[in-house]
Amino acid sequence: MNNKRIVLAARPQGMPKESDFRLEELQVPDPEEGQILVRNLYASVDPGTRDRLSGEASYIAPVGIGDLVGAATVSEVVASRNSKFAVGDLVAGGFGWQDYSLSDGRGLRRIEDRRAPLSAQIGVLGIPGLTAYFGLLRVGALQAGETVLVSSAAGAVGSAVGQIAKIRGAKAVGIAGGPEKCRWLTEDLGFDAAIDRRAEPDMAAAIARTCPEGVDILFDNVGNALIEAALPHMRQRGRIVNSGMTGDYNATAENRQGIFNTRVFITQRLRMEGFIVFDFADELAQARSELTDWILADRLRYREDIDQGVESLPAAFVGLFNGDNFGRKLVSLA
Amino acid sequence: MNNKRIVLAARPQGMPKESDFRLEELQVPDPEEGQILVRNLYASVDPGTRDRLSGEASYIAPVGIGDLVGAATVSEVVASRNSKFAVGDLVAGGFGWQDYSLSDGRGLRRIEDRRAPLSAQIGVLGIPGLTAYFGLLRVGALQAGETVLVSSAAGAVGSAVGQIAKIRGAKAVGIAGGPEKCRWLTEDLGFDAAIDRRAEPDMAAAIARTCPEGVDILFDNVGNALIEAALPHMRQRGRIVNSGMTGDYNATAENRQGIFNTRVFITQRLRMEGFIVFDFADELAQARSELTDWILADRLRYREDIDQGVESLPAAFVGLFNGDNFGRKLVSLA
Repeated sequence: MNNKRIVLAARPQGMPKESDFRLEELQVPDPEEGQILVRNLYASVDPGTRDRLSGEASYIAPVGIGDLVGAATVSEVVASRNSKFAVGDLVAGGFGWQDYSLSDGRGLRRIEDRRAPLSAQIGVLGIPGLTAYFGLLRVGALQAGETVLVSSAAGAVGSAVGQIAKIRGAKAVGIAGGPEKCRWLTEDLGFDAAIDRRAEPDMAAAIARTCPEGVDILFDNVGNALIEAALPHMRQRGRIVNSGMTGDYNATAENRQGIFNTRVFITQRLRMEGFIVFDFADELAQARSELTDWILADRLRYREDIDQGVESLPAAFVGLFNGDNFGRKLVSLA
Repeated sequence: MNNKRIVLAARPQGMPKESDFRLEELQVPDPEEGQILVRNLYASVDPGTRDRLSGEASYIAPVGIGDLVGAATVSEVVASRNSKFAVGDLVAGGFGWQDYSLSDGRGLRRIEDRRAPLSAQIGVLGIPGLTAYFGLLRVGALQAGETVLVSSAAGAVGSAVGQIAKIRGAKAVGIAGGPEKCRWLTEDLGFDAAIDRRAEPDMAAAIARTCPEGVDILFDNVGNALIEAALPHMRQRGRIVNSGMTGDYNATAENRQGIFNTRVFITQRLRMEGFIVFDFADELAQARSELTDWILADRLRYREDIDQGVESLPAAFVGLFNGDNFGRKLVSLA
């Protein structure tokens, strides 16, 4: 029995290419005492992975050349020599882009509550949904009646941000690429307005038009160019939540975008703050429970875009950066 | 009896010039019922004034062409038809660049505690000192043992920031222009280290050398270029306090500096926040009392650079931006 996996072949320069990755096949090992063998059922395809491919220091170690590419996974235990896990258990973890993994069980979360679809465990109930939850409610300190502007709003994080804003009595405006995504935001998810970034030559003007009262929270998944466009429209004591930088991960020295208008940080008393979900490790279970309740009450919807098989992972990842993906990108491995 | 005053003649393009200002002489009016006439004794010369000369919206109205230039003042009441003020009272206010002013008394602070020198009322006991106090202790939330990096460290705000950091058990590193200022910081004020920005071709390397443990708080009075240089050296959960932007007030579209490395806001969970002293209006008296105690205990020193006469104000202001001034710039009007 073979394990197919995707390793990093070359560090991407600018936009990643499929040739930056390589498929490997290795024999599936037997678990030793204390270990389990899992069959990965879903693997995530995350824009944030781009950052780890660059070889620069971050809060998580970079991926080495020839190393497995890391990713969130949902898996089923298929062999166990660890008393804490039984064959058939479902676990969420970070086994990366491969079919099988060995583990000593550390860092795994057993999925006890199976009410929501399994793939949601690495989507709206995984890091993307938790990023939306803590970024908006804790870092952003959302108050009812405020206006939230979110970029990459049709993505896994952004779509949750807007819906949580609505649940908490705020106004939600999303920025997305193309009329189909914008319609989904306003017609299916209840966003108050959507900005089609492809149809807007002047993003600052579009923000002024859709947020005439100004922006209290910019929940940013894109990076500097959008922050710069939004800055003149931030209300006093506005917050900019740095959640992701899709637009800047691939920047090279020549095409990088900057924030210039920092003067308004003083005049409007703005706050900009980055975070990662692990900062809220003690509260993840409570948040996941609240998110599950919202899913079951049909107040929190999500959309997935699922490809099939390990071989499809590089193309799925590259596609994240051309703006064509719609919904949480996953690959089904089973 | 004539009142000499300085008005804005033209909006500065980039660096301000003396010809952007004009001296006017007007008759000193008599106070009407409810008014007082004050003789201004000291007027402040502040880099932040540059921002109001541009005609753009801010937290305070811009100066119109032909209008008096605003500034903090210390004044003596010379005529009173207001029962709340007597001739000889000393008041701190914002009467601008002129010898005499009429007032109905609103917005004035009577100086009751005359222990400190009068000029300090618009220096370390005025907005600069209060900016240091609240910016460092409240916005920056300084903890003992942390490292504070402050720019324009020999200025009125920066010199107070470093000394308050030391009083509160932190490490203080200052950035200033020239060996004389740097010596003053380390030898007279007790800073742990000083960086001479004129002698440092690579500011990022100088920060790494003087702050090998990283920077917990960047108290920035300069703007984007320095923030960008410091970003790679910020410690996890570091804070950037936006206090002023001397380096960016004069920026034009061609020479503006940007912040590019916002990626570290996420990886290091940084916070950047702007503020103004008036956000802490309810606590100014308590802070001023604590600052006065520190002055009298010789734990908080300050340096003044005082020119004479209204006519000297434009040149004093222009000089702020060539880095030659050393100490709180004031003009004595009496």
